[in-house]
Amino acid sequence: MPDPHAPSPRDDGTTLDVVGIGNALVDVLSHEDESFVDSAGLVKGAMTLIETDRATELYAAMGPGIEVSGGSAANTIAGVASFGGRAGYLGKVFDDQLGVVFGHDMRANGVDFQSPPATEGPPTGRCLIVVTPDAERTMNTFLGASSLFGPDDVDEALVASGRITYLEGYLFDRDEAKAAYRKASQIAHDAGRMVALTLSDTFCVERHLDEWRVLVRESVDVLFANEAEIEALYGVQLHEAVERARGEVGITCVTRGPNGSLIVTPDEIVEIPAEPVSAVVDTTGAGDLYASGVLHGLSQGLPLAECGRLGSIAASAVIGHTGARPGQSLAQLT
Amino acid sequence: MPDPHAPSPRDDGTTLDVVGIGNALVDVLSHEDESFVDSAGLVKGAMTLIETDRATELYAAMGPGIEVSGGSAANTIAGVASFGGRAGYLGKVFDDQLGVVFGHDMRANGVDFQSPPATEGPPTGRCLIVVTPDAERTMNTFLGASSLFGPDDVDEALVASGRITYLEGYLFDRDEAKAAYRKASQIAHDAGRMVALTLSDTFCVERHLDEWRVLVRESVDVLFANEAEIEALYGVQLHEAVERARGEVGITCVTRGPNGSLIVTPDEIVEIPAEPVSAVVDTTGAGDLYASGVLHGLSQGLPLAECGRLGSIAASAVIGHTGARPGQSLAQLT
Repeated sequence: MPDPHAPSPRDDGTTLDVVGIGNALVDVLSHEDESFVDSAGLVKGAMTLIETDRATELYAAMGPGIEVSGGSAANTIAGVASFGGRAGYLGKVFDDQLGVVFGHDMRANGVDFQSPPATEGPPTGRCLIVVTPDAERTMNTFLGASSLFGPDDVDEALVASGRITYLEGYLFDRDEAKAAYRKASQIAHDAGRMVALTLSDTFCVERHLDEWRVLVRESVDVLFANEAEIEALYGVQLHEAVERARGEVGITCVTRGPNGSLIVTPDEIVEIPAEPVSAVVDTTGAGDLYASGVLHGLSQGLPLAECGRLGSIAASAVIGHTGARPGQSLAQLT
Repeated sequence: MPDPHAPSPRDDGTTLDVVGIGNALVDVLSHEDESFVDSAGLVKGAMTLIETDRATELYAAMGPGIEVSGGSAANTIAGVASFGGRAGYLGKVFDDQLGVVFGHDMRANGVDFQSPPATEGPPTGRCLIVVTPDAERTMNTFLGASSLFGPDDVDEALVASGRITYLEGYLFDRDEAKAAYRKASQIAHDAGRMVALTLSDTFCVERHLDEWRVLVRESVDVLFANEAEIEALYGVQLHEAVERARGEVGITCVTRGPNGSLIVTPDEIVEIPAEPVSAVVDTTGAGDLYASGVLHGLSQGLPLAECGRLGSIAASAVIGHTGARPGQSLAQLT
């Protein structure tokens, strides 16, 4: 018997607009002086993977924090739901207090999140984020339970039910996660859906450069990157990198911080201005939320300029406060 | 052998300025519409004690949240430390993730917090806080491990080492906590120190009215209350209640929201203006932080008007963002 609470499929057979897959993390954010970045040996502005001992040491050095659900693709999916989109998420937490927080926040955002928590292995992953006075965020990720995510965790029905499957590049690191990535991508394409990818961080790109290049060319329909990431992918300067992307990807979105973004296709280049922000407090999640606006727009069939505008709105909404999740309904801002 | 890391005592033998005792909680805050308060059956603006089932039900109904260390006296003590004061705290968490968060945040604020976590019994307590668009906070407290706090948890040396022992009225509810309260108060007075109390909430006052009246008259040197609380204590209108307090308490501080506060003694009445705030986001912790400024000032021997000014500064610093802990150094705001 069909689930009476299940959403009715649309004309294209989808019950979801965007399905995200990524590392399920809770962020721990503290505001620190510039000197902290040096004294703690952090790579400013980057995402660095850390193990248990380093996480303990770094947390002890950090000032008082706030805890907010995070995870790059999870932030994006929460944003899609906040725009009113039908959103689903796959990722792994542990059966502990932070895992409960993560699951609560996804479901409270209206996201279909049913991945069962792990009951063995490391605790729920967390990202220790240092925010400096320039509002830049420096991320240090203890993957915890999210490091267990593998192909068996890819819910075939969920992926096939979504118009767009969105994958975070952070995932594309461990072999098991790569296998999960490839499986999800295959399922989506077999079902006639789109695959979107964010390059996430230059370290992700550089660590697996050859694989990334094949992957982007062969299986990505929508690509998200910032300037440094797309330059790293193609090993050339921005202008040429954008031209290369136009030659092999359907839609490429390049974020440029306060300079807005570019959305390019083989046929056109759309320049998107940034939305004005009165005071930038914490840039954590800016790229994630930009992607939420674009993906929501694409899933609704909106013109690229409008997709980009939604991206800028979502990014501006999240950088005015601490934490990477929108503090208000994004639908009300459009 | 003395601890080589222990702070050197001042001339009066103290190593701490303010020692706080209260319920050690982690706050879970979400922004909700006014209609949520009704549909969830909340008592707007108040603090309500809830049990496990109700906490689970209410959390499920709440939107996405942020987690921040809280607890009324703990917020005050974090504020004292943020002003640069020497601060200590006694309260009980469980040995779990939220307990680690609470302990980290106290120590990261520079607070001497060494209460061992419980290893049996309920998990770390939390306060589910609904913030409405008018910035009012409605609190629903699951005491958890903090309900185990009793006289054995009162560290005699710590209390005797502080110039002022600050007790939250929320504590004065269960018999064990009352016994802890009386023990701490006795230790402080025997050591020649001051005892400060906040009435916390009208429900606290009304539930134990006769005991409160004796307690305030006989053992409180510094009293904090808002208008409703002091009226509840004396069962008369504000003006008369203030006069009654002047007759039996050395220093009484009455907070009046946007109208500032009064600090009254048998000899004088000092009117303290509120500090201007550009946008009030969340009033959680306003009273707690006001107390931190006054207590810090008193412990440093500052004039009452200056103590009140510090209180207003701290309160204004915390109501401009979500959560009850200062997001910046209060010392830098003075």
